[in-house]
Amino acid sequence: MHPSRWGDPARAAALPDATRGLVEMVFGVYDRPAVDHPTLPPSALGADLLAGLAAIVGADQVRTDDETRRLRTRGKSTPDLLRARSGDLGDAPDAVVRPGDHDEVASVLAFAVEHRLAVVPFGGGTSVTGGLVARRAGFVGVLSLDLVRMKRLLAVDHTSMTATLEPGLRGPEAEALLAAEGLTLGHYPQSWEFASIGGFAATRSSGQSSAGYGRFDALVVGLSVATPRGRVDLGSAPANAAGPDLRQLFLGSEGTFGVITSVTVRVRRLPAVKVYEGWRWPSFADGAAAVRTLAQAGLLPTVIRLSDEAETAINLADPAAVGGEGSAGCLMITGYEGEQAAVDAKRAAVTAVLTGLGGDGTGTAAGEKWAHGRFDAPYLRDSMLDAGVLVETLETATFWSNVERLYADVKAALTAALGDPSIVLCHISHVYETGCSLYFTVAAKESADPLAQWDKAKTAASDAMIAAGATITHHHAVGTDHKPWFAQEVGPLGVSVLRAVKADLDPTGILNPGVLIP
Amino acid sequence: MHPSRWGDPARAAALPDATRGLVEMVFGVYDRPAVDHPTLPPSALGADLLAGLAAIVGADQVRTDDETRRLRTRGKSTPDLLRARSGDLGDAPDAVVRPGDHDEVASVLAFAVEHRLAVVPFGGGTSVTGGLVARRAGFVGVLSLDLVRMKRLLAVDHTSMTATLEPGLRGPEAEALLAAEGLTLGHYPQSWEFASIGGFAATRSSGQSSAGYGRFDALVVGLSVATPRGRVDLGSAPANAAGPDLRQLFLGSEGTFGVITSVTVRVRRLPAVKVYEGWRWPSFADGAAAVRTLAQAGLLPTVIRLSDEAETAINLADPAAVGGEGSAGCLMITGYEGEQAAVDAKRAAVTAVLTGLGGDGTGTAAGEKWAHGRFDAPYLRDSMLDAGVLVETLETATFWSNVERLYADVKAALTAALGDPSIVLCHISHVYETGCSLYFTVAAKESADPLAQWDKAKTAASDAMIAAGATITHHHAVGTDHKPWFAQEVGPLGVSVLRAVKADLDPTGILNPGVLIP
Repeated sequence: MHPSRWGDPARAAALPDATRGLVEMVFGVYDRPAVDHPTLPPSALGADLLAGLAAIVGADQVRTDDETRRLRTRGKSTPDLLRARSGDLGDAPDAVVRPGDHDEVASVLAFAVEHRLAVVPFGGGTSVTGGLVARRAGFVGVLSLDLVRMKRLLAVDHTSMTATLEPGLRGPEAEALLAAEGLTLGHYPQSWEFASIGGFAATRSSGQSSAGYGRFDALVVGLSVATPRGRVDLGSAPANAAGPDLRQLFLGSEGTFGVITSVTVRVRRLPAVKVYEGWRWPSFADGAAAVRTLAQAGLLPTVIRLSDEAETAINLADPAAVGGEGSAGCLMITGYEGEQAAVDAKRAAVTAVLTGLGGDGTGTAAGEKWAHGRFDAPYLRDSMLDAGVLVETLETATFWSNVERLYADVKAALTAALGDPSIVLCHISHVYETGCSLYFTVAAKESADPLAQWDKAKTAASDAMIAAGATITHHHAVGTDHKPWFAQEVGPLGVSVLRAVKADLDPTGILNPGVLIP
Repeated sequence: MHPSRWGDPARAAALPDATRGLVEMVFGVYDRPAVDHPTLPPSALGADLLAGLAAIVGADQVRTDDETRRLRTRGKSTPDLLRARSGDLGDAPDAVVRPGDHDEVASVLAFAVEHRLAVVPFGGGTSVTGGLVARRAGFVGVLSLDLVRMKRLLAVDHTSMTATLEPGLRGPEAEALLAAEGLTLGHYPQSWEFASIGGFAATRSSGQSSAGYGRFDALVVGLSVATPRGRVDLGSAPANAAGPDLRQLFLGSEGTFGVITSVTVRVRRLPAVKVYEGWRWPSFADGAAAVRTLAQAGLLPTVIRLSDEAETAINLADPAAVGGEGSAGCLMITGYEGEQAAVDAKRAAVTAVLTGLGGDGTGTAAGEKWAHGRFDAPYLRDSMLDAGVLVETLETATFWSNVERLYADVKAALTAALGDPSIVLCHISHVYETGCSLYFTVAAKESADPLAQWDKAKTAASDAMIAAGATITHHHAVGTDHKPWFAQEVGPLGVSVLRAVKADLDPTGILNPGVLIP
């Protein structure tokens, strides 16, 4: 990826005319060009250290050139992009090291312990919470441990319906390998085209089809981890009562306890049919109640998402949008994937419930539109940043009885912090029997100091989440950005336990220092 | 409960005639009377310590009488019962302390730290893995922390469909409180009549209806824990990506990290309909393949269990048994609970699949019989022990592709270790998309040293589980009995991490010393 933009440059585009018109109307458009080739600080690593690393992974697999380092600097949050756009690549790693298997990872960790090098595991580079920004203090240098060479499908078990994958596989690569076996993982976060299997596991990712396929941590039945103290292999059964489920200690550990070198995941048969459709609800509250009814009746489609009034209106600002019914109400997308008979049965049952609750089915146009553009939002963000509009997202989750309060409080906090002109949009896209996520998208006219501008809004929103008893992140992980609120969420003993595990597995603290653990 | 027998004395009974005939035929029946009132070692606690405890919980709530201590000694494994029957109550606690709320638990822990008292959290006393047998060495005495007074339903959230329960509630008490709200937890392990909410959480229990309602750890969305270092409150959302899921570190911690003082669980509406029925399969392998098909198709009933040929034959030795078809093949029980329409739909879909796979539906007689006797097996064990027949169970789980091997290996290990005459029965009763549990029941003529006899068989079976890559326990927890194999299952770093967490939360090691952590 480009150091200050999302994704495939060939797919980047200027704003569509309709969007440009809206942006111009609300914010006024002006150019905010990025520094094209920001310069990097020189690598802090001497020839002896580089030679030592080369002896482990091969000389070709130790890179210190600017281009490689630039692309391993930070992640893809808006602050990350703003810093890169302004020419600041101060967090660049000193070298990018590319191990080929578990044993090479373990050897790199041993070398890093010996020579006081911080190690940042790198999969797709799509973190939006500062998960790739290691603390440099106290270390001789920082290595980006790029897992790009670890892309094997290690095992497929068609009887147990599991597959063992290496961490460097990106979403489409993993799906292609599984598709050759007639299988799918079904895990499609918005970052899917670039994010990696190891990253999904390390951050407890959740995909757009989580209602049907489950969160990534719910799909993992086994994993191997390289730690500075040795190898961990977990996953003796789908579930057991053999002490705490230690798999859940490594899932979500964000590279701070070890480097995940393989995961064994539950897989499904490739769906024969995929159908996505739209529903219209009078209000966000009505739609949310319908989502809750489906979840608690055990009747969830594969995909379900509900936009609030503002997000629905923005979507429909596109002249190609569904129905031409104007911008009133809220849009829900439902998607069904599987065998034809199962899809038909589920769709009929869901349709009966939604119709009974007052939903207005609008057919497949809105669903197809959503499916077509489901990975495109980050490209749009780049175009907006080019136009001087600050765009960012944040998300949380809570129990159903707290959704209305959480929605109101976070929206109010963002609106107050960003001032005029700004837009705050929200949708529900991950649902459970007992609650759901809330995903906010904001747009505001960039101030002279957009980093400070966003920091103020992010702080206000995060404070509102914790005050409401909700989580600081449903699926974006903690990284460095969420640490203060994460500490409040799990409390001092939660933090203490994480520190104890960290000290046990990584006694010299080389793994992603400064990330996750407050 | 009786110190050397299961459950309600009024429900204990001699063997039914049919069973007695079978037992006589296979093993020869002889009386093996238990010592009626085994004596206890005197309490090691002096008046000053007892007064200190009384100052926290009240004088009435500190008990040192023989009867109370006897009923808090060990759990209900067959070795536990054999020791008690022989008059050995050497593991009796020195005092039974009954706190009334979280703060009293916390104060008792602080007192125990100060005075070097080991603390054994006590819920229902139904452990079958030595989870209530604390190591005494290094401590002034051992307290049984009986949670019997903590029986409140603290909160009900009908919107989120959650309930917050105190740990001392036994299965029927929790269900009665929830039923008054039109709700159910749906968690029915065989120990349900006596086991407690806190114990379900601390051991990651799984109930007979796990296919429909889920394992207990999957039902928990929040919990509070009293540790020697303070209070932990977790559960900000149904799921999140805020670091590792720390709830899963306390679930399964068996009282070694802290005392669970409340759990918030997912609840369902009380089912309007319950239907249980029987199916006959030509072989265990055929039945297992059918169970797997249902699990992987997302078509599981609320209850599904499959007996192997031997267990099926024993069941049918009862003249009241289903069908009168002789003892060939394997019996499957399917159960459906919920609203009538949902039950009908699921039952029709499952019936179509099972019939298509060659299953032979035998109607509801076998299902009703199973439902009627679902909590009775431990009473039968007492009657068998009275007759000089050693009866015990053990269980494991693995992935589907490994089930055939695991079944054969554990059965062979038990059969070889127990010699003639012995019986080894097995059933599948907890199923997942990727695998299932195997639950073995054995019966053998008691030798002169039944503890050594069972130890040999248990060791052989446990070695076979680990050699097959399976788990040492699907739902009975680690306790003291499973520690050697648990250490192999999670590996040296898994053990190291648990020790690190233990040292962090319980630095003086007062909590259930010797349990869980190798």
